[in-house]
Amino acid sequence: MKSPIYDYLHHVLENVRPDASGRVAGYIDVLAKADPSRLAVALATVDGHLYSAGDDTVEFSIQSISKAFVYALAIEDNGLEYVLSKVGVEPSGDAFNHLSLQKGSHRPMNPMINAGAIATHSLVGGPSATAEERAERVLDVLSRLAGRRLQVDEAVYEAELRDANRNMGLGYMLKAAGILSRDVDPQEVVKGYIRQCSIKVNVRDLALMAATLGNGGVNPTTGEEIIPHDSVRQVLSVMTTCGMYDSAGDWVSRVGIPAKSGVSGAIIGALPGQIGLAVFSPRLDDKGNSVRGVSMCEKLSTDMGLHMMDISQVGRATVRTWTVTIAGGEHQPHGGRDHQEVPVFGLRGAVRFAGAERLTRALIRELLPDPEDPLLSGRHADACAVIFSLKDTFSLNHVAQRIIREDIHRLMAAGRNVVVIDPAGVFKVHGHHGLEEKPPKVVADEAEARHYIGGTGCRLVSHSDSL
Amino acid sequence: MKSPIYDYLHHVLENVRPDASGRVAGYIDVLAKADPSRLAVALATVDGHLYSAGDDTVEFSIQSISKAFVYALAIEDNGLEYVLSKVGVEPSGDAFNHLSLQKGSHRPMNPMINAGAIATHSLVGGPSATAEERAERVLDVLSRLAGRRLQVDEAVYEAELRDANRNMGLGYMLKAAGILSRDVDPQEVVKGYIRQCSIKVNVRDLALMAATLGNGGVNPTTGEEIIPHDSVRQVLSVMTTCGMYDSAGDWVSRVGIPAKSGVSGAIIGALPGQIGLAVFSPRLDDKGNSVRGVSMCEKLSTDMGLHMMDISQVGRATVRTWTVTIAGGEHQPHGGRDHQEVPVFGLRGAVRFAGAERLTRALIRELLPDPEDPLLSGRHADACAVIFSLKDTFSLNHVAQRIIREDIHRLMAAGRNVVVIDPAGVFKVHGHHGLEEKPPKVVADEAEARHYIGGTGCRLVSHSDSL
Amino acid sequence: MKSPIYDYLHHVLENVRPDASGRVAGYIDVLAKADPSRLAVALATVDGHLYSAGDDTVEFSIQSISKAFVYALAIEDNGLEYVLSKVGVEPSGDAFNHLSLQKGSHRPMNPMINAGAIATHSLVGGPSATAEERAERVLDVLSRLAGRRLQVDEAVYEAELRDANRNMGLGYMLKAAGILSRDVDPQEVVKGYIRQCSIKVNVRDLALMAATLGNGGVNPTTGEEIIPHDSVRQVLSVMTTCGMYDSAGDWVSRVGIPAKSGVSGAIIGALPGQIGLAVFSPRLDDKGNSVRGVSMCEKLSTDMGLHMMDISQVGRATVRTWTVTIAGGEHQPHGGRDHQEVPVFGLRGAVRFAGAERLTRALIRELLPDPEDPLLSGRHADACAVIFSLKDTFSLNHVAQRIIREDIHRLMAAGRNVVVIDPAGVFKVHGHHGLEEKPPKVVADEAEARHYIGGTGCRLVSHSDSL
Amino acid sequence: MKSPIYDYLHHVLENVRPDASGRVAGYIDVLAKADPSRLAVALATVDGHLYSAGDDTVEFSIQSISKAFVYALAIEDNGLEYVLSKVGVEPSGDAFNHLSLQKGSHRPMNPMINAGAIATHSLVGGPSATAEERAERVLDVLSRLAGRRLQVDEAVYEAELRDANRNMGLGYMLKAAGILSRDVDPQEVVKGYIRQCSIKVNVRDLALMAATLGNGGVNPTTGEEIIPHDSVRQVLSVMTTCGMYDSAGDWVSRVGIPAKSGVSGAIIGALPGQIGLAVFSPRLDDKGNSVRGVSMCEKLSTDMGLHMMDISQVGRATVRTWTVTIAGGEHQPHGGRDHQEVPVFGLRGAVRFAGAERLTRALIRELLPDPEDPLLSGRHADACAVIFSLKDTFSLNHVAQRIIREDIHRLMAAGRNVVVIDPAGVFKVHGHHGLEEKPPKVVADEAEARHYIGGTGCRLVSHSDSL
Repeated sequence: MKSPIYDYLHHVLENVRPDASGRVAGYIDVLAKADPSRLAVALATVDGHLYSAGDDTVEFSIQSISKAFVYALAIEDNGLEYVLSKVGVEPSGDAFNHLSLQKGSHRPMNPMINAGAIATHSLVGGPSATAEERAERVLDVLSRLAGRRLQVDEAVYEAELRDANRNMGLGYMLKAAGILSRDVDPQEVVKGYIRQCSIKVNVRDLALMAATLGNGGVNPTTGEEIIPHDSVRQVLSVMTTCGMYDSAGDWVSRVGIPAKSGVSGAIIGALPGQIGLAVFSPRLDDKGNSVRGVSMCEKLSTDMGLHMMDISQVGRATVRTWTVTIAGGEHQPHGGRDHQEVPVFGLRGAVRFAGAERLTRALIRELLPDPEDPLLSGRHADACAVIFSLKDTFSLNHVAQRIIREDIHRLMAAGRNVVVIDPAGVFKVHGHHGLEEKPPKVVADEAEARHYIGGTGCRLVSHSDSL
Repeated sequence: MKSPIYDYLHHVLENVRPDASGRVAGYIDVLAKADPSRLAVALATVDGHLYSAGDDTVEFSIQSISKAFVYALAIEDNGLEYVLSKVGVEPSGDAFNHLSLQKGSHRPMNPMINAGAIATHSLVGGPSATAEERAERVLDVLSRLAGRRLQVDEAVYEAELRDANRNMGLGYMLKAAGILSRDVDPQEVVKGYIRQCSIKVNVRDLALMAATLGNGGVNPTTGEEIIPHDSVRQVLSVMTTCGMYDSAGDWVSRVGIPAKSGVSGAIIGALPGQIGLAVFSPRLDDKGNSVRGVSMCEKLSTDMGLHMMDISQVGRATVRTWTVTIAGGEHQPHGGRDHQEVPVFGLRGAVRFAGAERLTRALIRELLPDPEDPLLSGRHADACAVIFSLKDTFSLNHVAQRIIREDIHRLMAAGRNVVVIDPAGVFKVHGHHGLEEKPPKVVADEAEARHYIGGTGCRLVSHSDSL
Repeated sequence: MKSPIYDYLHHVLENVRPDASGRVAGYIDVLAKADPSRLAVALATVDGHLYSAGDDTVEFSIQSISKAFVYALAIEDNGLEYVLSKVGVEPSGDAFNHLSLQKGSHRPMNPMINAGAIATHSLVGGPSATAEERAERVLDVLSRLAGRRLQVDEAVYEAELRDANRNMGLGYMLKAAGILSRDVDPQEVVKGYIRQCSIKVNVRDLALMAATLGNGGVNPTTGEEIIPHDSVRQVLSVMTTCGMYDSAGDWVSRVGIPAKSGVSGAIIGALPGQIGLAVFSPRLDDKGNSVRGVSMCEKLSTDMGLHMMDISQVGRATVRTWTVTIAGGEHQPHGGRDHQEVPVFGLRGAVRFAGAERLTRALIRELLPDPEDPLLSGRHADACAVIFSLKDTFSLNHVAQRIIREDIHRLMAAGRNVVVIDPAGVFKVHGHHGLEEKPPKVVADEAEARHYIGGTGCRLVSHSDSL
Repeated sequence: MKSPIYDYLHHVLENVRPDASGRVAGYIDVLAKADPSRLAVALATVDGHLYSAGDDTVEFSIQSISKAFVYALAIEDNGLEYVLSKVGVEPSGDAFNHLSLQKGSHRPMNPMINAGAIATHSLVGGPSATAEERAERVLDVLSRLAGRRLQVDEAVYEAELRDANRNMGLGYMLKAAGILSRDVDPQEVVKGYIRQCSIKVNVRDLALMAATLGNGGVNPTTGEEIIPHDSVRQVLSVMTTCGMYDSAGDWVSRVGIPAKSGVSGAIIGALPGQIGLAVFSPRLDDKGNSVRGVSMCEKLSTDMGLHMMDISQVGRATVRTWTVTIAGGEHQPHGGRDHQEVPVFGLRGAVRFAGAERLTRALIRELLPDPEDPLLSGRHADACAVIFSLKDTFSLNHVAQRIIREDIHRLMAAGRNVVVIDPAGVFKVHGHHGLEEKPPKVVADEAEARHYIGGTGCRLVSHSDSL
């Protein structure tokens, strides 16, 4: 059985192959000579599996796609606040090579237009970095993102440098506007920026680089944490509104994937927690985006349900409740009854706010008097203990952790035993400020939980004990 | 035990309460007289639970927040394509009351600025609707979204009408630009639009309306499907880039929740599959957004991990593999061996592309020769049958359905029995075009699967049978 | 002998007649049905002679050409300062029907775009004028400018009113921006403005109206002072930079005549002190200017040397100096010599600053010691009297008056008799603040001057008496 | 007697001296250190007399004022059409250092903003000029305009070069846009442009340079024709709409003099046929214009009646008619009468279209049947000869020449003798195409005219001979 994913990718390629519209970027010879028939697609999962089809090993210069990653670098090396003081985050509505400085701040509108990208490049390595250090740092990080040592295409670099008047103009303008720092030579920065754009990649590299963004900055094949989590969020946000040049709204509504395109004909897309993708076809539309690349992105988004506003995107964590019977270890005063039922609350899936909120509602429903009819208690209002089962919990994000810790704290404060079954260790017993709290008992499985509760001499709780 | 969610919402309120900056909208008396100290927050889950705190029953006019929902209405009544021909989807970078017609098409930039919202209102009910029908349809749908019959605040309506010069100007401009249709009277449309803005709501209404967007258009309390799924996606996309006026990029990177604000001081946010939220505080910043409302949204996003580009947003579906032993029901030709191992592939969580892709990889790993070493077969290369367990599968989106159906098709084509355990009926055995395919056997539990396979006289499959 | 001017005008017509490019304004039926072959030119001198050729009695609606004259009315009725607070004077670079409000002030950019013209119309008659009074005042003044009672073309008025959405939009926008005053109904103003545009004229009317501007506001045929002199200057200035829509610089450099065009295909031009001209041809270019009209204006400017920056435009006043002999009426102390030479300074032409400055230099040269060689006196250093001959002086503007009065004052202060020959009364002996000065003797001719000086017992002046 | 002009200029200075508002240009040290109290004014007549007051010999760098003259140079060296293809003529409404490229053509908006001035500088000397040749040509021509050898202020040049990032940016942008020609190095052009701006001048130099523009390009002191007449018209037109940066309309309506300002605090103004003026005061307003300089310009315009739309600007040429009596030299057939009256038409002043038109009307009135009553002939309908007296004619522009030649042609064709009294030779007997026409007799005075006509045996003309 061959994976149908491969077949699907070939289908995507063949679907757009006949479209010969658009024109190869003609401003420099090296790009103008690109074979317009080239066509490739690649898709990398956030756990590191890579699918590709078509001309997937053909190399081309990365061009503007580098802007997204170098923006992440600039944030890492200078802090987000400082980077925001130099480069904005608003879609410009202008062409990629427009100056587009914001009134007042003189900041370039965003890091995805050339002016912003030149400013961003100047920030790599911090204020004391030399031109060589900036260039080397960019090449090094892009290589780590791609999982292999990348090279600069010197022919492209030389050709772009010969035709760099507009970028040189932008460089001097940025210097004049105080965006480039005092010690930075505009010519050196523009050269470094052009070098950055001349790095050779193929769609497999790009898909992996995009998947690194989708995977919170961790390269899914090498496992290296390359981009800090917060930077990833910022980069993806800016790609959402500014990645595809001057039609942010159109792209978000039709494709709905944070993306970035380059003049060599490639586009990357990255969806948090899911996927990185890359397409390549050299013929460009009026805005400078690959014609067939855009078509493929649209098809991938539609077919694969990747639109970020698609409700099916997001899985719900679920809560199930059942009971276990604890054999009473003690002599029972009023005789006869030596077993008691203890409720178990099982959380399944990747639990975030919504899951933790559902758990909390379940706790209230089972353990508390009915708010509609206070005389009616929950089924387990008198349970002496409560078990949380995290056996099927894939993950707990920070807000879920906080809510569950708070639930446990309140249950324990009301005199109940709490046991957490957490074989995989997804639960942090202590929060940032919660060291003083008595932590719940954490065990590996249900048997251990029963044993522990049995040993505590757990007693009925009166339902009049409110919590 | 009180839910900690309530405590958290109170914490959110108290956190911003001291901030007295900003000014109540002053352009009409009724708004200018709003009590600036009012403060409220509400949060509705997509399964219909509503939390709120502060002045959560204080009513105010819905104002521009209505634009998001009326846009959905216009799409439903005219089709997306037609609506896009009349109103664009690009952030304008201009103030809410700017004309902002696009060059060439003369379309207002987007449905969230007044010009676009007036055009949108004119589309409600389709070309033959009267002014009364438009107004009634808007009130009706907003009421169904809120789950209660809403009312127009006649005092606000009258006051806004007296100060409607700018909107009247926009109305005539739209008429002149051919955006309003031939039979529509600009004055009537503007009146209807003002009436739409004058509908009274509280934060609980708004949170539920937002949660309806987050829930794919289905009101989570009434269960009514009010907005078609595709319209929801469009509305949320436009809210993402145009909801908070002229700083799309800033809002997306800092808050990352599709949102819409109104001049009465309310803001809604909706996150697909998760939550609807609403905040209220009348004092506005320079852009016309509620000062404390924006702060609350930022805090909610940060604390609750709601940013759409936050990787922790998205849970991963997981795949587990185990085996069941089938008692051989037949006489074995070469004697002795009358049991065989059949692999089970269990899918847990909300399965989308990524989950289905993981399943496919697991199938290939277990059933096929190792691509790295073709002499080495998968553990279950000779299994006569394959069981898919969807017992723990919360949902399968359309792409996941397609991939799994394709997997099954290929397995069956290679001569293997396939049994699907699907107690909840999440799996559709037939795709759109797949009626000719032989469907797999679907059963309710593992025992039934074993029994079925046992009865088929399942034979070993030679691993040389490629699939 | 027929005047060659007529032949020239026919030549101008025939020169452009074959040009069939451009399109008749199509936005209303009445204009769209205009006969595109119509062609006319008229030219009025500032002393009231009118030449015309072609379809010179064909009437058409005045349209935007009315804006120039109504701007003059608004200034007269409100004062320039107030009008400037409501409507700017900057070229907009936008189309005529663009809103173009200035940042901060919200003023329309200038009175020649529709928004500015509507605001201007609202100012006619001052704050208390009714819609009827505004309309009547406009019709009355335009009639007096044309020298005959004009009529509104009711068919054009009705048609434009039916298609007035854009102007209605502008009206409401202006109201919202606070440009229209509190009591003014936008609909009424726009109706009045459309009525103003619907007044019927022919090229002869327009040439006379333009010549009134060229003649400082005085209708050259009726002699009525219709527009105050200062308003004329303002109107001509605004026509210079804003009259031909969005290419002020191009019009000024190529044609160099203050002008205003209208959508019915007419253009007027007015050159101060010289001429008013009007052309008519209904087909318009992309900017809404008459194609053949623009060609005729260019040809007229070039052929007739009308460019305002053409140096040959401006004649120089000249100064001539001669002497008259005064027969000494008294007994001469040192005998024998009973005649003396008195210098006459004759000023010819229209004297402004430059002429008065030349006169002053002549006085100094003839009467004072040579500044280069103080021992060398002027030829008439010892003349007891000085005669100014204004016999050939066409006019003295205010600065020339002031300089000459100052010259006379200084001469008399130095003890010389001054006689002014001023048969036509161009000289004002008293300035604004000069009532205390002793005025010079004013006479009708040279004989009278000689007689007067002879009678004064004029004595030699020592050249050591400096002034 | 001292010229009151001097007193007036001192009055102008003292009037503005107390105004200490505005700030000295601070972007480079050398300018920032300028003594802010400096104040000067100079005024040069078009016949070469120079008045000045205040710090009239203090030198400063010419800065942007050079742009006007270098624009003239570029036109001379490349032709107007080519220059227009590289630099537009529209006011930009933007700051002086804004890029402001026109859509489509990528031309800088006009030659008075920096981008346009850099492009203009690159055109000096034509396509093959080197950087040195451009610099030398600029310095040479500016020196000839000033009437003395000017020098570059090397300290200013060096300082501006150190702070030239913005201009360097503009240079590269212009190169990228194809405005700078292929062989031109942006850095070299910007250096040359900065050198051009660093030339040292004082207000007397500037007034003379401005007066050269006012005098049709001929330096009024040296008599050298430095700028061709057509270029002067173009330069003055562009100064009118673009000279004072971003408020063309305001400057034209308030001051009405073509002008150019520079950041060192100087402003020049030039009025065709009249005057050149220059003011100097280093403190600048927000737009970069000298505060007190603007005040002085306004005062000079108002006091001296220099506004270009002021009707008193333009003198009228006048026509007078008288008769001379010719003694009949021949035997008279019907006896007795041997004298006849011959009309003389005297033209006075600078005659342009309007004067020639008036002459033509006089001819028709005197010589032709009354069009109102054809039976009534003009007084001189039967005159055998017509005398034109140009004795008092200051000048005849080309259109006046043409009209008068045409009048003469028609008179002679109708059988009348025509004699032109033209002692100063203002009349050209042959036009461009008129060589075949028989020219009129030209004489020096009235006596000679009478003698000539008497000798021709001049006979009565029947008034039935129409023309």
